[in-house]
Amino acid sequence: MSGRAAGQGPLSGVKVLDLTAVVVGPACTLTLAEQGAQVIKLEAPEGDLLRKLGGPAPSPDMSPKFIHFNRGKRSIAVDLKTAAGRGVLARLAEQADVLVTNMRGGALERLGITWEALRPRNPRLVFCVIAGFGRRGRHHDSPAYDTIIQGMSGFAAALGRVLGAPRFAPFVLCDHITGIIASQAITAALYARERSGEGQAIEVPMYESMAHFVLTEHMFRRTFDPKGPTGDPRVMNPDAKPIPTKDGYIAVSANTDAQAFAFFAAIGRPELQDDPRFNSVAARFRNVDAYFTLRAEALRSRTTAEWAAEFRRREIPAMPYATIEGLLEDPHLWETGLLRREVHPTEGAMTGLGRPVTFSAAGPDALPLAPRLSADAAAVLAEAGYTEAEIAALLGGAVVPPPA
Amino acid sequence: MSGRAAGQGPLSGVKVLDLTAVVVGPACTLTLAEQGAQVIKLEAPEGDLLRKLGGPAPSPDMSPKFIHFNRGKRSIAVDLKTAAGRGVLARLAEQADVLVTNMRGGALERLGITWEALRPRNPRLVFCVIAGFGRRGRHHDSPAYDTIIQGMSGFAAALGRVLGAPRFAPFVLCDHITGIIASQAITAALYARERSGEGQAIEVPMYESMAHFVLTEHMFRRTFDPKGPTGDPRVMNPDAKPIPTKDGYIAVSANTDAQAFAFFAAIGRPELQDDPRFNSVAARFRNVDAYFTLRAEALRSRTTAEWAAEFRRREIPAMPYATIEGLLEDPHLWETGLLRREVHPTEGAMTGLGRPVTFSAAGPDALPLAPRLSADAAAVLAEAGYTEAEIAALLGGAVVPPPA
Repeated sequence: MSGRAAGQGPLSGVKVLDLTAVVVGPACTLTLAEQGAQVIKLEAPEGDLLRKLGGPAPSPDMSPKFIHFNRGKRSIAVDLKTAAGRGVLARLAEQADVLVTNMRGGALERLGITWEALRPRNPRLVFCVIAGFGRRGRHHDSPAYDTIIQGMSGFAAALGRVLGAPRFAPFVLCDHITGIIASQAITAALYARERSGEGQAIEVPMYESMAHFVLTEHMFRRTFDPKGPTGDPRVMNPDAKPIPTKDGYIAVSANTDAQAFAFFAAIGRPELQDDPRFNSVAARFRNVDAYFTLRAEALRSRTTAEWAAEFRRREIPAMPYATIEGLLEDPHLWETGLLRREVHPTEGAMTGLGRPVTFSAAGPDALPLAPRLSADAAAVLAEAGYTEAEIAALLGGAVVPPPA
Repeated sequence: MSGRAAGQGPLSGVKVLDLTAVVVGPACTLTLAEQGAQVIKLEAPEGDLLRKLGGPAPSPDMSPKFIHFNRGKRSIAVDLKTAAGRGVLARLAEQADVLVTNMRGGALERLGITWEALRPRNPRLVFCVIAGFGRRGRHHDSPAYDTIIQGMSGFAAALGRVLGAPRFAPFVLCDHITGIIASQAITAALYARERSGEGQAIEVPMYESMAHFVLTEHMFRRTFDPKGPTGDPRVMNPDAKPIPTKDGYIAVSANTDAQAFAFFAAIGRPELQDDPRFNSVAARFRNVDAYFTLRAEALRSRTTAEWAAEFRRREIPAMPYATIEGLLEDPHLWETGLLRREVHPTEGAMTGLGRPVTFSAAGPDALPLAPRLSADAAAVLAEAGYTEAEIAALLGGAVVPPPA
């Protein structure tokens, strides 16, 4: 950890023991860290798989994806196959406000990391398991990874409905969203603890969380009719995409009557506001194919900037489409601090990400950058009450491998 | 509201005044309601646009999407164009723990709904604005809707990278994810309030939140090199999809060496574990195209069930792909209570959704179903301290339209 200011924010002072890896857990604890929690990332001696799986970096174990998901955290590597390693884990768990893990149930029991085991010594602990599947259902022992959950929970099916064959969204989408959901559940349990004095156990199942996400949107008519269609046709329409202009693309959102009628005027077709296919929200919903086709055909005559100005003048919601490279060049993101130039102690000059949410009672977001493997081992052990001699012994052996 | 049990959970007792509509705000307050918060949904006299925009239902203003995003909430319609309506709003805001809105800044100021105005009378209020864009950046006044943010923030671009032309994900994805992010931020501010005694103002900008989501995953090499490539090739690979079998599709996730080597054995190609293209995590990352192609070619010979059994035996993470209809038939989701048969007071028999997350200190999730427009007007006004005569006057005029 660098010498920069520790995290500030609404979760300031909360100690999180983070036994997670790859994306679902790190996305969860990133949110907590961004809001001021002290996150101790306990890694296996070989380190979080994402260190290598997330793309090349100056150092071989500091992938860009790892860097972005792990800023503001501290790292200690511990070999949990040793009794001494499990002792370190137990001591850190006793002192934590939150323990979060995405290890499978069997592995947790073998390590003694269950709420039942920890609760007597730390009754204020919020114990969160991010599971693949809820324990009350038949899949509870099945493996869960992002693409497996995308395939099962309807994300791949929704894209398949549009594209003709199922496909995964080009994100670690279910991990990432479930991680955010878990951060909220943990925060809610911390709130409840302030009132009850007691921690609790939370289970955040990826599959149910993502089925909930998909079905709120796409249960559609089958909500009421067991034979009715699923899938909201408005968002599953093949033309639900940025609209090509003369020189690029623009995204237009004209949902209310006022917006749709202004759009008809902007494209020189004011008479369409009296067309029974398009003259109300419900009519445009019923004729969404024709509405989207009409929109797509209308915009090829002018440039993105010309349409953007025209739509702004008429108060029609629209903004130019951006590539990922374009996104990184949007001055707005630099003005708001979402993007910033940083210098990582080992990786050098880099573009970093700030906290998107602002809190009036929190200062600016100035977290340290993501840690090298076990970079904070000695500091974490000292805070946990280990003596200098004990720390030297742990770091000298194979229990807590020294920093890379 | 039906006579069923009020919400239980970690946010039990929290009063939320919900001035949101469509998806981003309702997704936020759904999470809060599921965890026990009392959510009062204050709607315009014509009701939340999602009542009609979210698909057909037995009643014309109870779309399935509205139903799923608004369970556990109570509704009161108030005409905020009248002084009396603004008086109702002010009184409800004085008594709330949380006020959340996605109205634009100018509209809020005209209604007197700003943190500066409310704070003196309710210093414990958590005031959350879900904005399109953060106030410190140049887009702060621009319109924001889900597809506009998908187009700007790299979601459409990431799909475009895979498909050849940008397209929106077939979900109200940015609204939905930002709503979950906002629920976490609000919960964190409630936690902080328990310690400081004071509320605070929160700004959750959709654009920055979604740029953060996309760039954690896809800033990639450009993190370190201003000319380097963006986009994680592993998830942007054109073959990142469920793999066709003899009779369907299966999702396979073989990331570690042990999993990948077991997969090579399962498909009868054990020698590939010594192939320099595939013999390590880093090697498979470099040769992800060849790895995915090889996987896709291998599975056509057997059925999904045969492969699922084979992979289970070898501890290779894999699960069958499901359509949205298939998802609704998975017994696991009924066993865990995520899916349940319900009877809505006006819409009749329906399939409802439960809370995916479980809390050990909370009882079962048994929330009332989504309200008809203004169904709870009288009860909400009575709780706010209005007399019977005042309530009758408000309901008799145009300020608080009577229930549909």
